[in-house]
Amino acid sequence: MFRSLGRVQQFNCNFLTLQRLSATSKLHICTSRMASSDYRIERDTFGELKVPADKYYGAQTVRSTMNFKIGGPSERMPIQVIKAFGVLKKAAAQVNKEYGLDPKIAEAIVQAADEVSAGKLDDHFPLVVWQTGSGTQTNMNVNEVISNRAIEILGGKLGSKDPVHPNDHVNKSQSSNDTFPTAMHIAVATEVHQVLLPGLQTLHDALASKAEEFKDIIKIGRTHTQDAVPLSLGQEFSGYVQQVKYSIERVKAAMPRVYELAAGGTAVGTGLNTRIGFAEKVASTVASLTGLPFVTAPNKFEALAAHDALVELSGALNTVAVSMMKIANDVRFLGSGPRSGLGELILPENEPGSSIMPGKVNPTQCEAMTMVAAQVMGNHVAVTVGGSNGHFELNVFKPMMVKNVLNSAQLLGDASVSFTNNCVVGIQANTERINKLMNESLMLVTALNPHIGYDKAATIKKNSPVSLASCQKQSVPVSFCQDILSWFSPPHRFGW
Amino acid sequence: MFRSLGRVQQFNCNFLTLQRLSATSKLHICTSRMASSDYRIERDTFGELKVPADKYYGAQTVRSTMNFKIGGPSERMPIQVIKAFGVLKKAAAQVNKEYGLDPKIAEAIVQAADEVSAGKLDDHFPLVVWQTGSGTQTNMNVNEVISNRAIEILGGKLGSKDPVHPNDHVNKSQSSNDTFPTAMHIAVATEVHQVLLPGLQTLHDALASKAEEFKDIIKIGRTHTQDAVPLSLGQEFSGYVQQVKYSIERVKAAMPRVYELAAGGTAVGTGLNTRIGFAEKVASTVASLTGLPFVTAPNKFEALAAHDALVELSGALNTVAVSMMKIANDVRFLGSGPRSGLGELILPENEPGSSIMPGKVNPTQCEAMTMVAAQVMGNHVAVTVGGSNGHFELNVFKPMMVKNVLNSAQLLGDASVSFTNNCVVGIQANTERINKLMNESLMLVTALNPHIGYDKAATIKKNSPVSLASCQKQSVPVSFCQDILSWFSPPHRFGW
Amino acid sequence: MFRSLGRVQQFNCNFLTLQRLSATSKLHICTSRMASSDYRIERDTFGELKVPADKYYGAQTVRSTMNFKIGGPSERMPIQVIKAFGVLKKAAAQVNKEYGLDPKIAEAIVQAADEVSAGKLDDHFPLVVWQTGSGTQTNMNVNEVISNRAIEILGGKLGSKDPVHPNDHVNKSQSSNDTFPTAMHIAVATEVHQVLLPGLQTLHDALASKAEEFKDIIKIGRTHTQDAVPLSLGQEFSGYVQQVKYSIERVKAAMPRVYELAAGGTAVGTGLNTRIGFAEKVASTVASLTGLPFVTAPNKFEALAAHDALVELSGALNTVAVSMMKIANDVRFLGSGPRSGLGELILPENEPGSSIMPGKVNPTQCEAMTMVAAQVMGNHVAVTVGGSNGHFELNVFKPMMVKNVLNSAQLLGDASVSFTNNCVVGIQANTERINKLMNESLMLVTALNPHIGYDKAATIKKNSPVSLASCQKQSVPVSFCQDILSWFSPPHRFGW
Amino acid sequence: MFRSLGRVQQFNCNFLTLQRLSATSKLHICTSRMASSDYRIERDTFGELKVPADKYYGAQTVRSTMNFKIGGPSERMPIQVIKAFGVLKKAAAQVNKEYGLDPKIAEAIVQAADEVSAGKLDDHFPLVVWQTGSGTQTNMNVNEVISNRAIEILGGKLGSKDPVHPNDHVNKSQSSNDTFPTAMHIAVATEVHQVLLPGLQTLHDALASKAEEFKDIIKIGRTHTQDAVPLSLGQEFSGYVQQVKYSIERVKAAMPRVYELAAGGTAVGTGLNTRIGFAEKVASTVASLTGLPFVTAPNKFEALAAHDALVELSGALNTVAVSMMKIANDVRFLGSGPRSGLGELILPENEPGSSIMPGKVNPTQCEAMTMVAAQVMGNHVAVTVGGSNGHFELNVFKPMMVKNVLNSAQLLGDASVSFTNNCVVGIQANTERINKLMNESLMLVTALNPHIGYDKAATIKKNSPVSLASCQKQSVPVSFCQDILSWFSPPHRFGW
Repeated sequence: MFRSLGRVQQFNCNFLTLQRLSATSKLHICTSRMASSDYRIERDTFGELKVPADKYYGAQTVRSTMNFKIGGPSERMPIQVIKAFGVLKKAAAQVNKEYGLDPKIAEAIVQAADEVSAGKLDDHFPLVVWQTGSGTQTNMNVNEVISNRAIEILGGKLGSKDPVHPNDHVNKSQSSNDTFPTAMHIAVATEVHQVLLPGLQTLHDALASKAEEFKDIIKIGRTHTQDAVPLSLGQEFSGYVQQVKYSIERVKAAMPRVYELAAGGTAVGTGLNTRIGFAEKVASTVASLTGLPFVTAPNKFEALAAHDALVELSGALNTVAVSMMKIANDVRFLGSGPRSGLGELILPENEPGSSIMPGKVNPTQCEAMTMVAAQVMGNHVAVTVGGSNGHFELNVFKPMMVKNVLNSAQLLGDASVSFTNNCVVGIQANTERINKLMNESLMLVTALNPHIGYDKAATIKKNSPVSLASCQKQSVPVSFCQDILSWFSPPHRFGW
Repeated sequence: MFRSLGRVQQFNCNFLTLQRLSATSKLHICTSRMASSDYRIERDTFGELKVPADKYYGAQTVRSTMNFKIGGPSERMPIQVIKAFGVLKKAAAQVNKEYGLDPKIAEAIVQAADEVSAGKLDDHFPLVVWQTGSGTQTNMNVNEVISNRAIEILGGKLGSKDPVHPNDHVNKSQSSNDTFPTAMHIAVATEVHQVLLPGLQTLHDALASKAEEFKDIIKIGRTHTQDAVPLSLGQEFSGYVQQVKYSIERVKAAMPRVYELAAGGTAVGTGLNTRIGFAEKVASTVASLTGLPFVTAPNKFEALAAHDALVELSGALNTVAVSMMKIANDVRFLGSGPRSGLGELILPENEPGSSIMPGKVNPTQCEAMTMVAAQVMGNHVAVTVGGSNGHFELNVFKPMMVKNVLNSAQLLGDASVSFTNNCVVGIQANTERINKLMNESLMLVTALNPHIGYDKAATIKKNSPVSLASCQKQSVPVSFCQDILSWFSPPHRFGW
Repeated sequence: MFRSLGRVQQFNCNFLTLQRLSATSKLHICTSRMASSDYRIERDTFGELKVPADKYYGAQTVRSTMNFKIGGPSERMPIQVIKAFGVLKKAAAQVNKEYGLDPKIAEAIVQAADEVSAGKLDDHFPLVVWQTGSGTQTNMNVNEVISNRAIEILGGKLGSKDPVHPNDHVNKSQSSNDTFPTAMHIAVATEVHQVLLPGLQTLHDALASKAEEFKDIIKIGRTHTQDAVPLSLGQEFSGYVQQVKYSIERVKAAMPRVYELAAGGTAVGTGLNTRIGFAEKVASTVASLTGLPFVTAPNKFEALAAHDALVELSGALNTVAVSMMKIANDVRFLGSGPRSGLGELILPENEPGSSIMPGKVNPTQCEAMTMVAAQVMGNHVAVTVGGSNGHFELNVFKPMMVKNVLNSAQLLGDASVSFTNNCVVGIQANTERINKLMNESLMLVTALNPHIGYDKAATIKKNSPVSLASCQKQSVPVSFCQDILSWFSPPHRFGW
Repeated sequence: MFRSLGRVQQFNCNFLTLQRLSATSKLHICTSRMASSDYRIERDTFGELKVPADKYYGAQTVRSTMNFKIGGPSERMPIQVIKAFGVLKKAAAQVNKEYGLDPKIAEAIVQAADEVSAGKLDDHFPLVVWQTGSGTQTNMNVNEVISNRAIEILGGKLGSKDPVHPNDHVNKSQSSNDTFPTAMHIAVATEVHQVLLPGLQTLHDALASKAEEFKDIIKIGRTHTQDAVPLSLGQEFSGYVQQVKYSIERVKAAMPRVYELAAGGTAVGTGLNTRIGFAEKVASTVASLTGLPFVTAPNKFEALAAHDALVELSGALNTVAVSMMKIANDVRFLGSGPRSGLGELILPENEPGSSIMPGKVNPTQCEAMTMVAAQVMGNHVAVTVGGSNGHFELNVFKPMMVKNVLNSAQLLGDASVSFTNNCVVGIQANTERINKLMNESLMLVTALNPHIGYDKAATIKKNSPVSLASCQKQSVPVSFCQDILSWFSPPHRFGW
């Protein structure tokens, strides 16, 4: 039985499946029984390897699958990085063509790179994040796939490296050391623009609409989780709106440094083996291909040796997560009930809430959002630790860092949309409940302070709770009691 | 171009693929054009839904895929949780049979649950982690798959809930609130025993073997990264051995509380709707099915409302990560070179190291390990934040917490094996280099302290560096210089 | 005005006060205008320095105050570390006496060390945490203070190093590399036993007493922050009791490795310059002086190069913090109100709650506790980062690590006592409110599941909410309704 | 002995010292034996209390010292917060005067507040961070001190609240809920401008000067900690310069939201009990008093309920810490030796390095800096957890959050200055060592790639290592070898 629980690790084990055969936890590496038609022989500087006949990748990719059996398929290099590499390799080929690369080769590379970006070759990128910390093996995976696909386009033989060589042509004027950070920045900036910022904007707009909708509903405020003086429900939501507005600003404020690309720095940042102008041309080509304002990094040494730009962005995402945790927590507490909670909000019912309690409806979107928030906070620490441990000319936590930043951006963006569509837009104010709590409240006496002083007001409060309905009975002028409502009735001084 | 970078989100969108159709980032929800033969109609308390005809899951699973489009396939509930649910549902069915559940139904549930545990039905669990924080939807996914598969076994009609009902039979005497934490603990304990502990033991043994192999090699010590007094290379490795030995102890020390199962607590921990003895019998059945010493949790309220046991285990994994970071950092620095580094260790060459620098070989296994360590530290914070934010009778960060703990255990276990097999076992001492550095060292004068006093020794050091070769020339007896070597020559007083 | 906000840094600037004189942020180092009677001249291997005449510390301490102007007095080395050093130096002197140290010198060291432990010389330890990462300067501070005080006892001249030399006598058979980690472990273990464990036990007992007191009060349960099936208030508190019980177990489980002392390893762990048996004798002497089961570390290389034992303990404290956050959050939410919250608990009123809202009372003890919990989680990450960044034979994050672990232990211990005395013991159940919510609840229908099935029960729930009072009206036997209460009435199956 | 280790907690225990009298860990609260001349009686809404006669604080402060015995004097509210309160109270009094507050009272408040800002009354602020999460007690401490001091100025009787009342006059138009966050922002912005930014600029300039100084020194590069192609030492330092330059930009980018002040929002953000214009006038007065561009927060609800601005700034500080860790790590590794390390840099010798190894000199400034970096990363998590746990109209982790942000800013600023003055400015290049390593290097063959292709270059490398000296011997034109140096000789293409 113990065995049957065993995780089947579906690593690419030289294209056979690794099997964990016994409870002794020994790993029995598959032995190849491939028919010769199933594979081709490729070689790298370390020797020959069998490569699956139907795959574009080559020897270095296969070698990585053999050496890094860590985590399995769910730990693969994020597909956004692969697609970003497609953009980069296309841009590099175009620039290399300007500098003399055979146009036929350049164009085949461009075509193959486009297929990578379009997601047509996703099955050819089996490598996991937990490889070399420079991402060299993924860079080579990309080089191999593009060169073989380009060879195919040009009628050559897979694995021959002819007429398109993975290093000399696809990787021309590049090093893993500058391409991988370039792909990191392209991938992250794209995710931010395609997923995160639209998601946050969606949430912002829905919350703003609710703040407007709720602007005339006066409710009890709560500080220290205890009853406090009133505000409008619209004002309360306006705080959330402001948080999301600032979330967007924070993310945008971190982007200028993410738009800086390392390409052109090559091995240690000196630009060895590149032509003058290559860096600038590649950045500008990538900018034009993506529609995002990428520029070449002003200092390539920093761009290879440190990934502070991603730590900074991760810090912004962490702040967004903090905002989301607050908002989602408030929504679920304000919507708690139906009978024994605060019950001021009515949340949409989206699914059965319990496998045992019939009819129970839960704030599940808030829960997904707060789980995402916790994950983003954790991802941020991973990014921080990785970012701080670079040495000399190269930070070698690159794949881990980009995985976490992409994950945070995607989860926050997706969760914002899900939370908006399945919760925020359907939130209703439970005005009956809100009014009931409001009328029972004791805190309106606060408004008397300016008139009778704190100490006297405190005495009143202790001895004889003052509700809105009864404040007239105190020894204070009726007009004061009437004034009270003016503080939280529209038009408001702050927020909605 | 911007569009072509778009992540294609392969959510189960009522079994069609969600497409992100334009750069405006609007999500166009797929409209169903399924032929009627492709689906069946199922219903939950919220209404009817189309369910893919070839899937065992039902309405609640489909509804979750519609409501939680967060993160895509790579964010699915870890398969270890699904398999653990298989074990639990089997155990519950067996115990329910004792308490009167129709044996035919019970046996069909057992058979279906076995298939879940064996990984035969993995395609039927499409839900992501980012769902309800109780994991209710995954519990229902399991209930639906098992009931439909059991119905099929018994010759019934999929989706009919007859003769095997997902709630009344598969979930009998259970609630998501107690089954999900039970599955969490089963999954984590299994991963720890199948992957993590064997991995750590593998690493321990390899390091211990190296410590023994290197026990006679005297080398310069380094404190503050600066030259210090000598020790043997075996002693240096013995420190790593001790760290891994304690890693194993730390993980084991956290397990007793992981072996406690919530099953039997049902909705809030009172055991409502279960029979007396159910909790104990389920725990003992799970123990017997898995070979692990599971027991029923002594306090079910704690077991549902808090997941401190997983926070505690995550803390142990965090400590393991700290140890791994130290060891892998040392190995790569001691193996740095080949010409301009410390160069005391010769690390195995596993793959080409650079896409631009021919012949470069890098400590890639150290890099994978240190990236894993950083990830585990981050995962730990996510677990901590989730664990601290439970409210009242239920913590609703369950799926996120178990995902991170499983990920940490798996990555550390896998990376330990990879690091061992591809690095540690092949490490050689570069004795020529070690001896050269040793003979050039200035620090042996330290051994003179007891004889001539610190102040005088410091003076000697300032004015006239003392190497092993030249210490006799100082105004100290020859015998003192000979004594020096005795401190770090075997037999050693500490370690190897 | 800007200037007047300036933090006056009260560093020991060679015993004058550093002044930040202008808004240009230039630091003007004080020039000495001391009368010659105010200071004496001491020297270290770097030259002469003026030492305040009324201080026992010497040149190396003064030098550290000049070189590390970081953070000011609030960042001083925790006094617990200094006191632990007193214990260690006393033990070392006693053991050194056995090995031949002049008894007069040994006894003077013992007397001076006792004064350090007793806190009589606290003013003589001005160094901050942010010094050398080995804590060498604090070790020398201790050596200097003890040697000068011992010289004074023996009638010698301060600063003469005669007849008691700080290195040759007070530090005999020791190195900063083994003494500082030894003092770390002594200080932490003492804090755990004197402050943390008693604090947790106090909290445990008070919660257990409340659980017993509340065992007959049936209340609505809450899962997902939403109404769920009932439990007793005693059962709810029993979950907290279990968490604190496990908190104590977790801390204790981490202690065995904290009881291991590095003393005897000296500079890199080989024990250079110590006698055989020194390590064991020192550990046993420290054990006898403190009453705690200290032993000599089995592997000194690990004990110097890594501080995994403190990372592990910090992980336990992090788990305790997670428990505290849950408990304090629950208490404040259950005690929220007085009119518009959940209001099931009545919390003690300890102080005026608001500077503007008269009569407001807030759950301030919960707030202090949750702030402490957040701090401990942060401290834990600092400890983790420091612990992971050791290199070769020495971890050089020692002062930072011990500061954070001590801080976490102290804050959790103190806050537990404060929370207990000022909140827990005074908690009252608001039975009127609890009963009202209970009777309004809809969730009792859950108990009908076993009788009429989930689908039918869900229908009832949707159409016609079932309260305890009205359940008889449903088409289910009266006996079923009576059975319901049995699940959460004493004697209970789980917890209280 | 155990007892003598006991931490003496010097809490203000109604102005006597708390003593921990026995090993049983019971706390014996001091009983007052004060002579009646030593105290005065004050009262708050909870009753009478003895207040030390020589202190300006009053009953609420004393009550807090009794209720929050957590952590002792080292855990006091940061003095920067107190001074910021002085600025705020002065500003509020001036604005209140405009709105009709008796000028005599206003002016006395201004004078007393000035004394608070100037640090003249530091002894009157005994409260710890671990109090109510709104900081109400510190706001009242400030109100009490200022009112009593103002009373004294006006010839009244301490504790009489006449003619200056702590609530009605000093706190006029204010609430703790808006004053404490206002003081948080004033304190943090001031610390950033007075300590952090000047410190970073100092470090930047010193590194930039070194980068210029070292621009002609060609050295081996290191990637993956392994030898790589060369760069100049100036280029290497230029990477650090860029990191610090961006550190400054990152901090500045976070400041706009820190300049937003909550003052005027009062209890929940509505501005209850304030006059229209009060918020704007206070912000502008604070701006003029501090010289910093403070403005009133556009949304007061967000400004009270969330402290995302501090989480964001903490994220920037976390990124700065990441940069510092990288730089300090590089410096110590490049300066490792003297004989057995990399030895490319000669670091200044500032103090004796070892209590046992005479003559040892350690990179202690790097160690202080990396410890600070680890602390800042931990502080950031504490801030993140606190920031995420606000509820409804008020975040109640305020004191903890501001403590950590201030600590991070101060430590980074101070450590930057210390690291600069005691390390960076004195760094020398060990050109002999650098040249030796450079000439032995194998990696120059990389420059041959464009000429002979990667595969052929790799073959050369494997069979016959190519140094600069010997590259001419390969079958490549001499001119190629000459070209090699051009890549890393000035004028450089990137950086210095």
